[in-house]
This record gives sequence, C-alpha cells and structure tokens, in this order.
Amino acid sequence: MAKSKKFVYFFGGGKADGNESMKNLLGGKGANLAEMAGHPKLRLPVPPGFTITTEVCAHYYKNAKKYPKELDGQLKAALGRIEKLLGKNFGDSSDPLLVSVRSGARKSMPGMMETVLNVGLTAATIPGLIRETGGNERFVYDAYRRLIMMYADVVMEKAAGIEPADDMGIRKQLDRMLGERKKKKGVKLDTDLSAADLKELCEQFKKKIKEVLGKSFPDDAMEQLWGGIGAVFSSWQGKRAIAYRRIENIPDIWGTAVNVQAMVFGNMGADSATGVAFTRNPGNGDAHFYGEYLINAQGEDVVAGIRTPAPINENSASEHNRQEATLADKMPAAYKQLFDIQKRLEKHYRDMQDIEFTIEKGRLFMLQCRVGKRNGPAAVKMAFDMYKEGLITKEMAVTRVTPSQLDELLHPIVDPAAEKTVKVLAKGLPAGPGGATGQVVFTAAAAVEWAKEGKAVVLAREETNPEDVDGMSSSVAILTARGGMTSHAALVARGWGKCCIVGCSSLHIDAAAKTITVGGETIKEGDWLTLNGTKGYVYSGRLPMVDASKENQILSDYLAISDKVRKLGVRTNADTPDDAARARSLGAEGIGLFRIEHMFYGKGSDEALFLLRKMIVSKTLEERKKALDELFPFMKKDIKGTLEAMAGHPVTIRLIDPPLHEFVPHQAEKIRELSEALGISVEALEKRASSLRESNPMMGHRGVRLGVTYPEITETQARAIIEAAAELAKDGKSVKPEIMIPVTCAVEEIEHQREIIERVYKDALAKYGLKKLELLVGTMIEIPRAALMAESIAGPAEFFSFGTNDLTQMSFGFSRDDIGAFMPAYIEKGILKYDPFQTLDQTGVGELIKIAIARGRKARKNLKIGICGEHGGDPESVKFCHRVGMNYVSCSPFRVPIARLAAAQVVVEDAAKKKKK
Amino acid sequence: MAKSKKFVYFFGGGKADGNESMKNLLGGKGANLAEMAGHPKLRLPVPPGFTITTEVCAHYYKNAKKYPKELDGQLKAALGRIEKLLGKNFGDSSDPLLVSVRSGARKSMPGMMETVLNVGLTAATIPGLIRETGGNERFVYDAYRRLIMMYADVVMEKAAGIEPADDMGIRKQLDRMLGERKKKKGVKLDTDLSAADLKELCEQFKKKIKEVLGKSFPDDAMEQLWGGIGAVFSSWQGKRAIAYRRIENIPDIWGTAVNVQAMVFGNMGADSATGVAFTRNPGNGDAHFYGEYLINAQGEDVVAGIRTPAPINENSASEHNRQEATLADKMPAAYKQLFDIQKRLEKHYRDMQDIEFTIEKGRLFMLQCRVGKRNGPAAVKMAFDMYKEGLITKEMAVTRVTPSQLDELLHPIVDPAAEKTVKVLAKGLPAGPGGATGQVVFTAAAAVEWAKEGKAVVLAREETNPEDVDGMSSSVAILTARGGMTSHAALVARGWGKCCIVGCSSLHIDAAAKTITVGGETIKEGDWLTLNGTKGYVYSGRLPMVDASKENQILSDYLAISDKVRKLGVRTNADTPDDAARARSLGAEGIGLFRIEHMFYGKGSDEALFLLRKMIVSKTLEERKKALDELFPFMKKDIKGTLEAMAGHPVTIRLIDPPLHEFVPHQAEKIRELSEALGISVEALEKRASSLRESNPMMGHRGVRLGVTYPEITETQARAIIEAAAELAKDGKSVKPEIMIPVTCAVEEIEHQREIIERVYKDALAKYGLKKLELLVGTMIEIPRAALMAESIAGPAEFFSFGTNDLTQMSFGFSRDDIGAFMPAYIEKGILKYDPFQTLDQTGVGELIKIAIARGRKARKNLKIGICGEHGGDPESVKFCHRVGMNYVSCSPFRVPIARLAAAQVVVEDAAKKKKK
Repeated sequence: MAKSKKFVYFFGGGKADGNESMKNLLGGKGANLAEMAGHPKLRLPVPPGFTITTEVCAHYYKNAKKYPKELDGQLKAALGRIEKLLGKNFGDSSDPLLVSVRSGARKSMPGMMETVLNVGLTAATIPGLIRETGGNERFVYDAYRRLIMMYADVVMEKAAGIEPADDMGIRKQLDRMLGERKKKKGVKLDTDLSAADLKELCEQFKKKIKEVLGKSFPDDAMEQLWGGIGAVFSSWQGKRAIAYRRIENIPDIWGTAVNVQAMVFGNMGADSATGVAFTRNPGNGDAHFYGEYLINAQGEDVVAGIRTPAPINENSASEHNRQEATLADKMPAAYKQLFDIQKRLEKHYRDMQDIEFTIEKGRLFMLQCRVGKRNGPAAVKMAFDMYKEGLITKEMAVTRVTPSQLDELLHPIVDPAAEKTVKVLAKGLPAGPGGATGQVVFTAAAAVEWAKEGKAVVLAREETNPEDVDGMSSSVAILTARGGMTSHAALVARGWGKCCIVGCSSLHIDAAAKTITVGGETIKEGDWLTLNGTKGYVYSGRLPMVDASKENQILSDYLAISDKVRKLGVRTNADTPDDAARARSLGAEGIGLFRIEHMFYGKGSDEALFLLRKMIVSKTLEERKKALDELFPFMKKDIKGTLEAMAGHPVTIRLIDPPLHEFVPHQAEKIRELSEALGISVEALEKRASSLRESNPMMGHRGVRLGVTYPEITETQARAIIEAAAELAKDGKSVKPEIMIPVTCAVEEIEHQREIIERVYKDALAKYGLKKLELLVGTMIEIPRAALMAESIAGPAEFFSFGTNDLTQMSFGFSRDDIGAFMPAYIEKGILKYDPFQTLDQTGVGELIKIAIARGRKARKNLKIGICGEHGGDPESVKFCHRVGMNYVSCSPFRVPIARLAAAQVVVEDAAKKKKK
Repeated sequence: MAKSKKFVYFFGGGKADGNESMKNLLGGKGANLAEMAGHPKLRLPVPPGFTITTEVCAHYYKNAKKYPKELDGQLKAALGRIEKLLGKNFGDSSDPLLVSVRSGARKSMPGMMETVLNVGLTAATIPGLIRETGGNERFVYDAYRRLIMMYADVVMEKAAGIEPADDMGIRKQLDRMLGERKKKKGVKLDTDLSAADLKELCEQFKKKIKEVLGKSFPDDAMEQLWGGIGAVFSSWQGKRAIAYRRIENIPDIWGTAVNVQAMVFGNMGADSATGVAFTRNPGNGDAHFYGEYLINAQGEDVVAGIRTPAPINENSASEHNRQEATLADKMPAAYKQLFDIQKRLEKHYRDMQDIEFTIEKGRLFMLQCRVGKRNGPAAVKMAFDMYKEGLITKEMAVTRVTPSQLDELLHPIVDPAAEKTVKVLAKGLPAGPGGATGQVVFTAAAAVEWAKEGKAVVLAREETNPEDVDGMSSSVAILTARGGMTSHAALVARGWGKCCIVGCSSLHIDAAAKTITVGGETIKEGDWLTLNGTKGYVYSGRLPMVDASKENQILSDYLAISDKVRKLGVRTNADTPDDAARARSLGAEGIGLFRIEHMFYGKGSDEALFLLRKMIVSKTLEERKKALDELFPFMKKDIKGTLEAMAGHPVTIRLIDPPLHEFVPHQAEKIRELSEALGISVEALEKRASSLRESNPMMGHRGVRLGVTYPEITETQARAIIEAAAELAKDGKSVKPEIMIPVTCAVEEIEHQREIIERVYKDALAKYGLKKLELLVGTMIEIPRAALMAESIAGPAEFFSFGTNDLTQMSFGFSRDDIGAFMPAYIEKGILKYDPFQTLDQTGVGELIKIAIARGRKARKNLKIGICGEHGGDPESVKFCHRVGMNYVSCSPFRVPIARLAAAQVVVEDAAKKKKK
C-alpha cells in the first residue's frame, strides 16, 4: 500500500516534523514554529501544536471545500501527541486542553486572515478549566466570551458567506451588548466586569447568535476545532485577503496553512505576561535587544493599545513608557532566558527577528519568530553592522535593504505617524519622492516672492513650463493637475530631488482665482498643503516631517558594499557643475546625460535664454550664426565646469534636443519684452513663434533633425564641448567628453553630424596645439527604428545610450504628457500591470533594447551601452539593464544610490537563480 | 598565349559580333545596332560600324584615362572591316570614309552625353569627298563646319576639363560668329549660306579655336577619332550625366560604350531624307506605323524644330503637318521597305519600337532602334492590344504599363504642353494627384458659396480641419501651406481622388486679408490658380486640362489581365455607400478600412456631428449613453448601406480612432452654437474642450484607449455593425463584417474589447433570431509594440491590418503633420532616399511588419493580414506587401487600379529574379 500523503506536521517537545525551509508547505509561521521547536541547536520552549499544510488549502478549493480523507486521522494523531506532551486532553472535562487556530501563508499577510483562540471551551470543559486555574472563574469566562465573539464572527458568519448590512455584523452586535453591559455597570474597561457579568453575557451572546444567524454556537470541542480550521481556509478567499494579494502580487494558488497550537496564557495574573520583541531596534537599527510587554495580558492586548506596554529593558525605553518597570527588572529569570533565546535566534537565522512570547505563571513560551520588518535607516544600519560583525556575507548585505527603504534615507518624508491621522485630499502621480509642507501659491512669480520672505511654498499649477522654473526652484514642492511621470514638472523636480506630485486630476486649479477646488473643498492662496511625493498623496494642512537625508556615513559605507558586488556602472544625469559634484558625492561614476539645453532653464539663465531666443527667431543663416557665436561662451563655461567637476570621469553631453519653439515665450508680456529686446515687431515674433508651432512636438523638428537642418547649431555645440575639453587638457587635466546625438532614426544622420564634429575637432587640436583629445561620438537610441537599424548605426556611433522615455513613448504610441486620460483606467482594468514610464516594459520596449544591443555589438564588438532615461533610477529597470548586458545606467543624482544597490542585488539574485537550476 | 580580351564588337554586312542581349557590355544602342545588323531574322541595312565596350570605360577610369593596350589593334581591325565593306578608306584622300562617334550606356540617358559627327574630314580628305559627292562643295563644307563646332566644344573644351565663364564657351563663341555671318549676308537660315561662306567660316573657326583654347583643331582623321572616343568616355563623368544618374539611380560603375559607325547622309539632296518613327502611335497607342521625316536633312534637324517635319504616312498626320507630303507618297519604295522593317522589328522585339532612319540618295539605312516611350493611355492600349494579338503573354502585358502611366488615366491632368510654357509659382507635396484650375478662395464657406454660383474654386488654407470638409468638397482643388502627405487635407483629398497640394510652405496664406503672398507676388481672392497635384506644382493663372479619367473599357480590360496574374487581394478604404460603389467599379474586392468617424466629416453630417459632440461633452456615463443611443441609428444606416454595396465582399470597419477633441469645434461662433444647442454655458463647453486638449494628440487618448476608458462607445459601435449585418442577413443577403480595433499596443486591450463585442453579438443573434453571423474581430497593427507582441495579440485577434501611417510615425518618431520643417532637408541631403509616408520604409518599418507577420502566424496559422495605410496604394509598397506574404492591400478607391497592377507586376518581377538565380 502506498504511504498516505502527510498533511499534518507536528512540533513540540524538542521535536518537529518540519523546519524553516518548508515555508511553501507549512507557511511562514508554521515553518518557523517547527524550526524553533525542533532544530537541534534551538529546541526552544514552544507550546506544542501542528500545522495543516497549504496543500490541504489547495485541495479544499479544488474539491468544493472538502478535506482530503487522510486529514481527520492525521489531525487526531497530532492532537494526541499534544495531549500526551502536556498531560491534558482536548474536550476533557477534568483538565481540558485549549488550542488556538491561526492562519499562516507563505508570505506574511498581516491582519488579512482569521484567527480563533481558546478553542475547546464548552459547557463540559469550563468547570475543569476553572478548577485547573485555581478557581479563576473570571479568567475562564473571559476566555469563553472571547471565543464566542470570535467564533460567531469568523466561523459562523464570515466563513458561512453571510454578508450583513453595515453595523449589523454579529461581531458589532455582540460588541454593542458588551458595551451596554459595561454602561449598565458604570464601568469602562472589560476587565472591570466580574465573572458573573461575563457568564451572563456569554449566555446572552449565545441566544443572540441563534437569533441572528439561526444556528447555535457549538458546544463540542471537536466541532469548534473543525469550524476554526474551515474558517481559516475560507478567509484565504475573503475579500480583504484577495485585495491584499492583488497589491502584493501573491498568487492565489499558494494557499494558507493552518496552525493549531496549545494555548498558553499571559493573562493568568501578575506572574504572567505577554510581549513582542526584536533582536535589534527596528526603528534605528541599533544592535540592542528591543521590545515591549504587558503583565497579565493576552497578545491582542499588546497590539490593541488600550494599555501602554512597558519596555522589556532599558534600551527599549521611550519617553512614553520610561516610567514603567522593565521585564528585566520584574521577571529577571524569564528575561534572561528570553535574552539568550533571541541571541541564538538571530545567530541562527542570520537576520533580525521579530518574536512573540508569553510568560504563563513565570514560564516562558515562544509563540512566533520571523524576520522583523524595519524602516530604511534601520535596514541600512543592520545590514552594515551584520556584515561588519561577520554574521552575513556582502551578497547577503546588499539584499537586506529594499530600494524603497534606501529612498527613505535620501529625502525628508512626512512623519508616517502623523500621516495616519489625516484624510488624503487628492491622489496624483508620485513624481518627486519625499515629503514637504508649505503654503500654496499659484504663480512662479508668487513662489519666488514668498520664498524671499522666508516662507515655505508649494507651487500649484495646471502644468508647468520652462518659464516656471524659477518659481519651481523657490518652492519646497510642486503640484500639478496635468501631466505624467515625465512631464516637465516631474523631470525638473526629480532632477533636483524635489518633492513633486503631478497629474492630480481631481484638483481644479484656478490660477486666476487663486484657488484649488477638490471634492467640494476650496483651498486658497496661503493655505497649507502637505505632499507625500513618494506615494502621490496630497493632504490639507501642515504635517510634520522626518528628515533622514543628511550626510550619512553608514549609508556610504553600506553602498560601498554594493559597489563590490555590482558589475553595472552607475552614472548620473546632471546639467550643471553643482549637480555633477552632488552626484559624485552620491557615488556617480560619470555623467550619462548632460543636456545642453538645460542651461536655459535654470536660475540665472536669463542672458543665455535671451540669446537662445534670438537664435531661434533668426531669419537668416547669418543672423543665426551671430546669435550662436554669442551663445558659445555660455555653453563652454557650463560644459567646462562640469567636465572639471567630474575629474576625468566620462561626461556624455547631449546635443540640443527639444523643439525650438519650447523656448519661445508664451505669455503676451514676455513676448513683448523679447520683441523689444530683439528690435523686431511683436507681430513678426508671433509669426515666427507660430510657424514653429507643431501638432505633435514630441515627434517633430527636434534632436538631430535640428542639427541636420541647421548644421551651424551642431557646430557651435561641438566647438563648445571640444574647446572646453581642450582647455582643460591643456592645463594637464584629465577629461573624457562624449558627444551624444539625440533622436537618431538613421545612420545617415550620425554620418552627417560626425562630419561636422570631426571638422571642429581637427580645428580645435590645431588651435590648442594638441595632438589628441579623448572624445567619443555616439547616439541616443530612443526611436524604434534606430533600435532596428542598430547594426548600421553602430558603424559611426561609438556608444549607445537608450533614451527609454522616448523609446517607451514611440513603442507604445503613448504621449507621456497625455497618458493621464487613460493610464489610470489601464492600470485599474489590468490592461497594463504598471505605468511603463515608471518601470520599463521589458517585453515590448525591452525587446527593442535587446535587439539594438545584439545588432550594435555585432557591428562594434565593444560598443559601450548605457541608459539615460528616467528608468535608469528604477530598481527593476536597473536589473533589466544589467541582465541585457549594458555597461552602465545613468539617473538623477538622488537615484544614484538606489541604482548602485539595485545593480548589486541583481547580481545576487541571478546567482541564486543559477544555483537553483 | 592567352587569347586577348575582346574590346571591340563589329557590326555590318549582315553580321555582328554582338546581339541585343549584350546591353551591359555594348550599351543599349550598340546592342540594338548589332541585333539589327546581325540577327539572322533581321539583317537590316545598318551602316557598318563597331562598338567599344563599357569595360573599356571602366578601364579608362581605373587607369588614369589610359586605354587597354589591345584597343588600338582591335579598333584598327574593325575600321578595316568597315573600309572593306564600303570600299572607302578612313583618312583617304580619294574616297574618304567619315564616321560618327556616339555614346551608348546600358540605359538611355538622353542628351546627357556627347556625340561627334563627320569625323574624318581633314584638309586631305575634303577634296576627295567633294569629288565623290559630285562636287557638292556646300554639303562638304557644311559637314566640316559642323565637325569643327562639335569637336571644339566636346573634345577640345569639355573633355579637356576647361570651364569657361557663362557665354564664353567655345561653342557659343562659334555660334555667334555663325550668326554674325548670316546677319552680314542678310539671311536667316544656315542653309542660306553658300559653300564659300562656309569654307571661309571654317577657317575663321579654326583661328578662333587656336586663339581661345591655345590648340589647333586636329587635321588628322585618326587623331579626330581618338579625340571623339575620349570625349565620349569623359562625358560619362560630366556634371549633367552624374546628376542624371543620381536621379535615375544609375550606378557610376556601369560606364558607357562608344559606337563608331560609318556616316550616312540624309542631307544629300531631294532624294535624301531622315526621320524618326514608332511602330505604333506613342500618343494614343493606335496600332498604326507612325512617324515624321524631313527631306534633305540630318537627324539633328528633325529634333531641332526649325523646319516642321512631315508625316511619314496618313496615320501620322496632324493638324500641324497635314499639308505636307508623306514619305509614302514621296519615296514609295523606301517607305515600303521601312514599313516592312518596322513590322519585323516589332514582331522581333515584341514591343513598340522607336526607330531612326536615314535615306541617302534613295537608299534606306537604319540608325537606331529601341523600345519606344509612350504616354499612359498609349501604354495601356498597346499592352492590351499586343496581348490580344498574341504578341505578348499576360505576364509581359502587366509589366508594360508603369503605375504612373496608369495614374494618368485616372485623373484629369494639366496639359503638359501648356505647363511647359509657364513658371512654377510654388512647390508643395503632391497630396492628391491630377490637375485642376480654379479661382482661389480662403474659407470653406466661400468655397461652398462660389461653387453654388457654378464657379470652379481652389480652396487655399493654412491647414484644413474637419470643419472645412464641406468647402473642400465644393472645391476643384485644395492647397495648404502646412501639413504633410497624410495631413487632414491630404487624406480627405486622396480619398476623394481630388487634386491637392499640401505643405506648400513658401506660401503666406492670410485668410483674414484674403491674400496669398509668395516671393513678392500677391494673389487675391478670385484670382485663378492651376495645380498639378501629381507633381506638387502651383501655377498662377488658368491652364488647360487634359482628361483621361472617363469610363474606359480598355483600362478595365487591361486591369483584368493583372487580376489573372496577381496573388495579392486589393481592397479599398471607403467610408460611405457611394465610395464603396465607386471602389467596386474600380475593382476593389472588399473594404479594408471603413472609418466610423468619417461619417462625421462628410456632407450632410450636421446632425450626426452634433450628436457626437453632445456625446463628447457628456459629463456622466448616463449622459454619454443617451447621446450614444441617439447616434446609433446614424452609424447603423451608413454601415448597412456600405455592407449592402459590397454585396458579400468583406468590409473591415474600424472603431472610432481619433482623439475626441478633434470633433470639438474650434471657432468661437461654432462653440457658441453648440453650447446653445446643448443647453450648457460656453464656459463649461470651453472647459470641457480644453480638458480634452493634448500635447501630442497622435499619441494620446485615441483608438482603443477610448474604448477601454468608455466601453459604452465600443458597445454602441459594435451594436451598429452587428445589427446592420443581422438585418441584411435576415433579408437573405450575404454580409462579411470585420470589426477592427485601432491603436492596439497590448493583447489585453483586444481581450477587453472582444468581451464587449461578443456580448453584443450574442444579444443581436437573439434579437434577430439568427443562429450565426459571419463576423471577424481583428486589430490594426500600427504601434511598434503591437508588432513585437504580435504572437500574443494574434490569440484573440482574427486578422491584422497594418496601419502604416501610424507605424511609420511611431517607428521614425516623425509626426506626419510636422515633417515639413525637416523632410525637405532630409531628402536633399540624402539622409532619407524618400519620404517614408509616401513609400514604405522597407528596412525599418518593414522589419517590424515582417516580425509581426511571422509572430502573428506562429500563433494563428491562417491569420488574415492586410494593410490599410496610405502605402496600400503606393506601387513599391504594394510589391513589398506581396513579398512579405500579406493577403491584401487596401487603398483609396482611385488607387485601386494601381494596386491591382503593382500586385501583378511583383509576381512577374519575382519570377524573373528566381529564373535568373
């Protein structure tokens, strides 16, 4: 006869059928209970119990909620082992065993599934338990009351599929009865109710249940147990659990396990307690045992927050609980045992553990252990410390911090505690991470003015344009009603590491009236707003900030570990010497994108912008050349400063990219100013501006197309770059300029532009008396056709840099400024899993990238390949770049640390995958 | 000893070293001379001569203008054979042989290269020739005068690389001397000069040459011959020849051959003549021998047009030359011989021949024969007639007409003769072929009004929009200053087969002032303009038209031959029952693109457009559904009519594609009207319109994105289509509707839309009591990502139709409305060889198409694949579609004949290529 399948895994008494590696089968909780109970190096005091596997859950759903036939026998055998170990019997009237029934999926789903405690209390077992607890009738009826309430709610209502009207759920009805009873007695706390009160209440509860649900509360221990198990399995397909799995990408087929475990009680008097602890401080990462506990309490009381938990030791004390006695003082023996156990656990698991314990009449029990959650700063500190302590390898260290945890260290954020207390006013796209709070203004001019008066301002605009840049720079945050993740506002803010929310379409921003209206509420100029730019949430009013963004030695030490692991280079997108220096300090190994045109956006760019505008409105070649000559020194200065700041690291300088009309002023006043300054009529200027207007500027006269139609514009830029480099080289400085041609679609464009650049190069060598100057000429790959033609393009192009913003736009046919109208519906309806402007579309756009890399390297074996789109700072996209064999990613200065980390993590992940195979 | 290479090919006396198949080696002229002279079935009276091969030309350029050493001996041997045949000797003083030296490349390059006649006349040979011509001194000195003029120009100046200032070329100087001489004598024609005059002039010429060029005119026959040969080879690299080759895509390495041939003279008196003839009438294709001749003249005189040539027979007479005697009358024997020869030639070559002949003292000589050029109507008639006569196969017939010749039959055109006499006012993009002339107006309203008064109007607009459609329809032609080949104006005009020129950027169209200014000229309302929409030329004033567009039985008979040859289906893009019927009459086998939204553009669409606008400005789902319900009958009516008109042929109906805001009125007055009609405020309407505004509408909220965000819009359309089909099916009519989803980028979009369509389908079956209805659901492939994801998309999509307009836009990142700013520079600088919106880019966009086809058919083996972009009517693109395995192309009704022809031609071309391999 074939051996029947094992569905029940026992643990307890220093033994266990399972272990920590069996999370898929036993769930996280069950696997860790087995490990703690049974591993030879641990054998901790875990109340005995057993785990019903996730395979039973799968069976249950595949077979119309029926269990495998072997389950009943295996369960009874396991229950028997508990009874034997504890000398108590389940459903026994003299010394009854009570059990808890808890869920436990592969991944923790906190609060999403059901639990039933105190299972086994019946008319028959209650007297025995009272006797065994030394006549503690109040304790027993309180336990019974809790069982009835939980069971009625979880098993008899929810698992039965009953969906009562609001406020008519059985739990709410029973709660109200409990409240009325307290009111009648004139007391406030549950604990103020007497044994008699509770006993009477239990009877009333049972009557109510029969009345409302049409069934009686079961008075049979075994029936209670099966009911609890069924309820846990049912809760896997509960609405909350399903919604949570969608968000967390947990597959439905995983299923949950069920843990049945002997009850222990922290609420048996002053010698009992219950608590939660961490092997290190999860709030800051300090390497001290840290936790809270409550005397005479059950686990749920610690979480409920009715009583203030006390610190387990001095290191755990805070201003809120400093006056309370520590566990170390109150129960030194139990504390010492607990302290030793947590040491062993951390060493065993090689990570910080989150543990739950209960002390029943002085005796310590371990109820749970799992890898503890931690915030960003703590994650970084722990990973670095553990690496230093030799507890973990460098590969483990780099996987211990998530990119979003790292992000917490790079920006001030809204205090999470404060954020929980307020209502979200509006949601938009999280364009610039971090948090900020300020007074709202509606024009760039007002932003500049108010900021001068020392006020913190949030600039709210329908959408921004280059004329707003001064105001944006003066604001602590930027908020727009229109635009996507790569709209003007988003790009500028991200480059500065500034908090920004865009595309917040529920806002009606009326700049003329100086109001924002949203859902009936009206916000006026000067009102306070708080923005969580990491989530895209806008709050009314002023919330406190938490700032972890200061110079941080641990952070740089930690990132240095990543640098040892990663293979991918990390550069930055920077447009000024200041940006370059900042990016260097964050670990950038070069500049992957220096946008010449950005010198016309920033502060103090008035004169350069004026000259640019003069160039744009030039009608003849001569006029244009003259304006370019005047522009030349401005270009050279910025480029030279940046090359110098990068101290010999490569600097990729992109030739002017946006359509020229983007630089022509839109406002009547500005147009008049410009026309006067240029000495031409407003009409002539408007005519010129309107002749530059385009239906789809993103696919219009821009990038290399400008360079082909106006070769003199390319020539001036090339001259600025090469002469800046030549002057530095002449001074003995190391420089590595790389000229990048944007918006290429055909090799002939590169050939045309190279000819100009090579001519300028030769002239510059002669002018500066140099023999050679290190210089590469390459191209953006941002047009689908360029990706397909990569083999020919790699002939004259010495490097590729993927412009994934545009490549995504063209590949999807999505204008990034206009996706607000349909992207939310696309995500909501599951047509796209994510916004491809945030995370690279690896199947579609990614295939073009793979094609381009393969073809490019076919023509030029050592072709240098990078990415300079916004995706260069997105962790998943960084990993993709590593996997397809790029040489580097380039991202905003503030994303450089994240890219360094992600580039290291992918190495570890891929090694693990390879090993698995 | 190895046999030395053959560089010289002799012909004459019924023999020839070469033949017609050796065009690559002997050039076209040389190969045909050899064929005529030597082919056993021809052996025509060709003056003997020889051809120096194109390999000598290649050698000449590879070896610093040196000839292969064998050439001299071979040339002398060949010359000897001529001398022997004719009994005359080159350079001989008693009976001298004169020769002509002519170029002859593989492909005819008319007028691009040089010729020297009468070579061999020297002081020594002149007396002998005078004697041999019976003392015809005037004839001999005229021949000498011509030799000197040609030789000085071609050999001594051009071939020597001398580039004189304007008007100072030696030819011009000698021409002036000739003119002065005539003036002095008081005569007008060269022929009025006496032998003495000419003799004196020759001496003066030689003096002048020595003076200007510093060298003497050579008085040695052999030196003259080598000079002439060198000049012909030199002219291969002359500026005109190089420019011509660039335009005609003729490779430089082909080189030219040189033909040296004994001179015969049509100018030896009244018994001599020269002429040009065609085996059929090249102007209308009539199967009659057709030609012109001149008594006592040389070949160049026929072309020069100083004397009016006479018709060779009655069939060749026109109103200009009807009074002249025919060759048949004047020289019946020679004519009869010529007539027989041309019959044999046509039969031999199986195509209409263009022949040159000379009659010297009653004796007929054939100087050239080649395939004759013909106009469109003639080409069609000849091909059809020859096929009927059994002269050619059906495969040959389909290659005998070029697509542009066919196009001549499909539109009225500007009379080419008249066009030559006027200056081009402006050039734009040829958006709608054919010609038109009319009075210019500047608004759609004026166009409608003037047209009602019976005037022919040309509507000139900066650019057009849907509100102009009535006016466009009322005009004979449309002219815009902005926009590309697929701008609104171009698309609409092409759909109607209307003459249209767009992107004519040199025009300043001022609608307010009702003027066009261009290069200093001002055109006012009511002035006449003539447009050649095939070339994109605009003329001031009123030019006559030639109309070949009427019902044409020969055309349909001819195209029926194509249908026998082609494999590719040809459908049409049609949006109304009328269009559908017209396309059917032109041979369309179905509709490949019926644009639902076009019902809102056309005439009489006011009510539907109003309802659409109502739908667009709806704020709630209910409002929108109500508006859609009102729209429904309009949609159904058009669709039903079209399905019926196509009588069981498939009709692909595309769901609404353009961004909704395209339908919102722009003019203040129209906005007011709409707001009143809708009962909402102008402000509210403007707010809604502005919220729909997009930065890059081409990549915005359009196509399936509308269907995903507003499923009710898809539902109404699906219902209109399916119920229209169901009603016809119920009446026993055959219908094949195909619903096409536009702008797809992901399979999930199709799945989402299919669900709606399938629901509607089931409802309709139930409603009409039908069991089944033939219906396909497929998608446009017009987004690069869709091409890459074709395998998954072909899951739910039952057919693909390539939207190559958008696919080209996205692949290149070119907005078709904005390319005017750079496309001319791109073409001019050779960065692109052609506008990819006119002819499909086979390497880039074409690769995406190939990928999509391969992947699509991987998932669905018999996937039906077509194209419905503008390229579906471009011959080269049609051929591509055949080659990549599409099932059909779909194009404007007026392009259907061209697509049928091109689809047949590609079959023949590919078979020939295969055979060659």
